[in-house]
Amino acid sequence: MIPSIEWLEEEKKVKMIDQTILPHELKFLEFGDYRDVANSITVMNIRGAPAIGAAAAMGMALATIEYKELPKDKFLEKMDEAADYMKAARPTASNLFWAVNRIMKIVKNSSGTPPEISEEVIEEAQLVAQEDVNVNKSLGKHGAKILDDGDTVLTHCNAGSLATVQYGTALAPVRAAIEQGKNISVIADETRPRLQGARLTAYECQYDNIPVNVIADNSAGLLMRLGKIDKVIVGTDRVSSDAVFNKIGTYHVALAAKDNDIPFYVACPTSTLSLEDTVDDVEIEQRDPSEVGRILGKVQAVPEGVKCLNYAFDITPFRLVTGIITEDGIFTPEEMLKKYKQ
Amino acid sequence: MIPSIEWLEEEKKVKMIDQTILPHELKFLEFGDYRDVANSITVMNIRGAPAIGAAAAMGMALATIEYKELPKDKFLEKMDEAADYMKAARPTASNLFWAVNRIMKIVKNSSGTPPEISEEVIEEAQLVAQEDVNVNKSLGKHGAKILDDGDTVLTHCNAGSLATVQYGTALAPVRAAIEQGKNISVIADETRPRLQGARLTAYECQYDNIPVNVIADNSAGLLMRLGKIDKVIVGTDRVSSDAVFNKIGTYHVALAAKDNDIPFYVACPTSTLSLEDTVDDVEIEQRDPSEVGRILGKVQAVPEGVKCLNYAFDITPFRLVTGIITEDGIFTPEEMLKKYKQ
Repeated sequence: MIPSIEWLEEEKKVKMIDQTILPHELKFLEFGDYRDVANSITVMNIRGAPAIGAAAAMGMALATIEYKELPKDKFLEKMDEAADYMKAARPTASNLFWAVNRIMKIVKNSSGTPPEISEEVIEEAQLVAQEDVNVNKSLGKHGAKILDDGDTVLTHCNAGSLATVQYGTALAPVRAAIEQGKNISVIADETRPRLQGARLTAYECQYDNIPVNVIADNSAGLLMRLGKIDKVIVGTDRVSSDAVFNKIGTYHVALAAKDNDIPFYVACPTSTLSLEDTVDDVEIEQRDPSEVGRILGKVQAVPEGVKCLNYAFDITPFRLVTGIITEDGIFTPEEMLKKYKQ
Repeated sequence: MIPSIEWLEEEKKVKMIDQTILPHELKFLEFGDYRDVANSITVMNIRGAPAIGAAAAMGMALATIEYKELPKDKFLEKMDEAADYMKAARPTASNLFWAVNRIMKIVKNSSGTPPEISEEVIEEAQLVAQEDVNVNKSLGKHGAKILDDGDTVLTHCNAGSLATVQYGTALAPVRAAIEQGKNISVIADETRPRLQGARLTAYECQYDNIPVNVIADNSAGLLMRLGKIDKVIVGTDRVSSDAVFNKIGTYHVALAAKDNDIPFYVACPTSTLSLEDTVDDVEIEQRDPSEVGRILGKVQAVPEGVKCLNYAFDITPFRLVTGIITEDGIFTPEEMLKKYKQ
């Protein structure tokens, strides 16, 4: 397991895997400017809700370094600008807002000088990353309880180590169960249009010796019918008070799981909860249609001149969700609301 | 609308569009050997149940030409071999069996000499093709009744003109409704792994000025939720007494349609009915896994060494089907069984 993102203390830089070129090449990017970190979130060098949260926090740390020689009022003004800039990088990712707000709370509440605040923020950003690893390990330990020896787990998109700082959310229970000595294998939905399952989930499973098969998204339902899938675990970008927002296609998987009596779990660190929202509050991001028409930017599938629609996220209502796995345990949606909704 | 397949009477050859290279190039193939026609079905130069039926019949006509100088007993023996060879080209396509059996009935029942039988078979093969066009037009006329002015129709895979000799099955109601002056637009599922929707449905809609948008298969459910799809019409490779067999992913579409109260129709010429079968009689064809891992043979999506599963067809139970459109009318699955099942 390689960390997807790291803070380089000596260089004062953010180091991340460039996930757009996986699985063919393992290349690292280093950024010293928070705008470049925001851009890396937009173009998906880094993706996955928790990894985006860590990247945003580290990006904000870079902003404090850039502005720490300014007078405090000017510093605060510039940090506000940086926060807005960072939040605009990926509108659906609630962890992005969560992380930026967490950093801005320190910036605003600290009585220190800008250089002192910068030190505090750098520490906090690293804490965000470390907490993510701890949370995922705890989530994995709880989630492993639902997995029996010999199970095959279907997952959609990539909510593995690469989607987090390390260890993963949807793949955390798989990793934990394997650490406990259970035989678990994974079926990865390829996850069109950007193929995060085919590229990233397959890559990290292979890297860590977790048995994995890749399928076209279309075949999940048939495989359930044929008895080849025991459990579904997916990650999430946001959980509102009534639905799970996750990669486009998640709703189809949930419907098929329900129709075949297969448990459908959502791995969700509590930082991804957004329970003050309802389904009507969230606008579904539309991405560049060429992601559909020109596959991986390389193969033109659609005739020239034909338009594509490219909605990036899916809405899965709670009635299709068996359980939500957090760092605190496993909950039905109702139990989860009771526990976490103020 | 270009015919996907034709009998060239003068050359005694079968002419077809090479659908594997659409939408980038419109190229025609010509075959004088029935084995090449069988191979063209296997490698999907031609595809779609009705087009495969016509190709198989024309291929059998080529076989009669090859063997017509043999003594009759030897001729019959060779024709049996050709029939077996042709049927092995694509195991899930019931029209393949239907067409070969139709030709073999003439071969076996005719009192003529082999050259006379060959003439009869050539005529019958052309009749199979002409009947397909007539059947589709009739199917379209019935199907157009379910379409209202302004409707957007989702279809999966390609069951258009290219899947038939001409006019299409799932797209026949769309064509007929447009001929009646209704504004109808199409949303085409791209249909991984072979992208028949992105390549072929998009191509023929564009060619015939039918408004079309392409989507990743994963987004059908969300678009239904957002109110952007009014009706679903798909084709089928086989209808048993309890389920519809069609391209992988059809089951997901049907589940999403049901969950969103959107009518789900299957366009099915009666030649595609296989009502003596049940779901347990049909083995689902598994195709080359590289169709998933290496997209259109060009882009390696999956890391080297990771295996893919590639089931080609899906099982959609009747409970998810609103209606079955044949050349005789529109029927619920129960009505269809009553009408056609002996």
